[in-house]
Amino acid sequence: MIDYEFAVRFEEVDAAGIVFFGRFASYCHDAMERFFDGLPGGYAAMITARKIGFPAVHVTSDFKAPIRYGDIARITGTVTKLGTTSCHFGFAITRAKDGGDVATMSHVHVCTDLTAMTKLPLPLDIRAVLAMHLAPT
Amino acid sequence: MIDYEFAVRFEEVDAAGIVFFGRFASYCHDAMERFFDGLPGGYAAMITARKIGFPAVHVTSDFKAPIRYGDIARITGTVTKLGTTSCHFGFAITRAKDGGDVATMSHVHVCTDLTAMTKLPLPLDIRAVLAMHLAPT
Amino acid sequence: MIDYEFAVRFEEVDAAGIVFFGRFASYCHDAMERFFDGLPGGYAAMITARKIGFPAVHVTSDFKAPIRYGDIARITGTVTKLGTTSCHFGFAITRAKDGGDVATMSHVHVCTDLTAMTKLPLPLDIRAVLAMHLAPT
Amino acid sequence: MIDYEFAVRFEEVDAAGIVFFGRFASYCHDAMERFFDGLPGGYAAMITARKIGFPAVHVTSDFKAPIRYGDIARITGTVTKLGTTSCHFGFAITRAKDGGDVATMSHVHVCTDLTAMTKLPLPLDIRAVLAMHLAPT
Repeated sequence: MIDYEFAVRFEEVDAAGIVFFGRFASYCHDAMERFFDGLPGGYAAMITARKIGFPAVHVTSDFKAPIRYGDIARITGTVTKLGTTSCHFGFAITRAKDGGDVATMSHVHVCTDLTAMTKLPLPLDIRAVLAMHLAPT
Repeated sequence: MIDYEFAVRFEEVDAAGIVFFGRFASYCHDAMERFFDGLPGGYAAMITARKIGFPAVHVTSDFKAPIRYGDIARITGTVTKLGTTSCHFGFAITRAKDGGDVATMSHVHVCTDLTAMTKLPLPLDIRAVLAMHLAPT
Repeated sequence: MIDYEFAVRFEEVDAAGIVFFGRFASYCHDAMERFFDGLPGGYAAMITARKIGFPAVHVTSDFKAPIRYGDIARITGTVTKLGTTSCHFGFAITRAKDGGDVATMSHVHVCTDLTAMTKLPLPLDIRAVLAMHLAPT
Repeated sequence: MIDYEFAVRFEEVDAAGIVFFGRFASYCHDAMERFFDGLPGGYAAMITARKIGFPAVHVTSDFKAPIRYGDIARITGTVTKLGTTSCHFGFAITRAKDGGDVATMSHVHVCTDLTAMTKLPLPLDIRAVLAMHLAPT
């Protein structure tokens, strides 16, 4: 399980004064990358040296309350399912100060050969690292 | 119905070389704003002068094929349902050159008093403008 | 000379309610890309197929007045000097409605072999295309 | 003096595969905000509660070497001069692993009443906090 706090950044808000909803994809991707920290060089080396990536194929997002510049948010992330080539992730964002719900996201990403842009069965070392973040059932 | 082409921008790709999935929120928001073009000053005046906004509350996205810098994409958008305070929108992005599917998105946004950050029944003029984009059933 | 209008986008503002100053780099890059429109496939094909790019090495920016969501801006761009490997560009952004000064930028970019990340003398076809945008002296 | 390391993020690169030069404005702004950490609530409370901001009016940037996703960068920042309404800041970014120069930036920001969008003499408490970061001469 991934669990950390982060500050909303100055330029992440939109003209309505709240964090632009597309920014939540960045927040979740940041958290997702941490699932791969057990690999040498982490997500970055996997992308740049091994040319293996995990493009999103399905994302469902529910936004319950806005956050703004100055807010500290908390994100938790788990691996909810590991398929042959796909990974299911769940993320929840809350306000750090009171635990109020901000957003929940369900993501499906597919292990991909970035050179050929084709699906790839999850390599065993990557599967093992992700399995450490599987949500208890 | 909204329907136009746009070019992927230089900085919209990520380290995997494809458009970052969070950017699709921007693409859809750009299209969504056009639903409001019938209002004086459009979406911008509604936000800044009337202090009425439409934060997203639920977004479902399916990504079928990546797009890259240099690609021309086509986006179509329709209003799929108008509730008392909520608006349902559907968007589809294809590659302009061959019509290949790139992504589909279903959005629910809620009419919101941006000062109080509370739900607002859709004002009649806004409802009328949005109704012009209702998908045929 | 490049000269066109564009609308400030919903998510380009910051928590101070004005366009974040880093966004002006994007505005200038968009304009700069148009200098290369005379090449087959434009800037995008040069980057992706020829692996030739123009990273910025020096940028000076003066910001005179803020712009906000809802504003229409006008950008003009000229090539101010062509060196052996470097290109000097000048950009000015004004408010479309009244011509008020918003920002001026001087850029130096260097022609670069993106594979080796080394300087490259300006290829003749690229030099010819850029020369069409040289500011009158 | 501000001095910390940060990781280049997945979506901060451009189609040339290096960090987009406009992103350096964000890096510097993040560092600049820390100059204000001595104020209650920091930069965020100053912006949102006191409605005092520091828009950039002049920025000079020199880019010496690219950075990429996977790189750890180090940023140092100092206050180089405090005027009546203006603040001069200097920033340097290096690669963490070898100290190689990446970029240097000189910024001038002006203390601004964000409601009236007019210049404001530096309030004494803000001046005192910034003075703690003055570069030794």
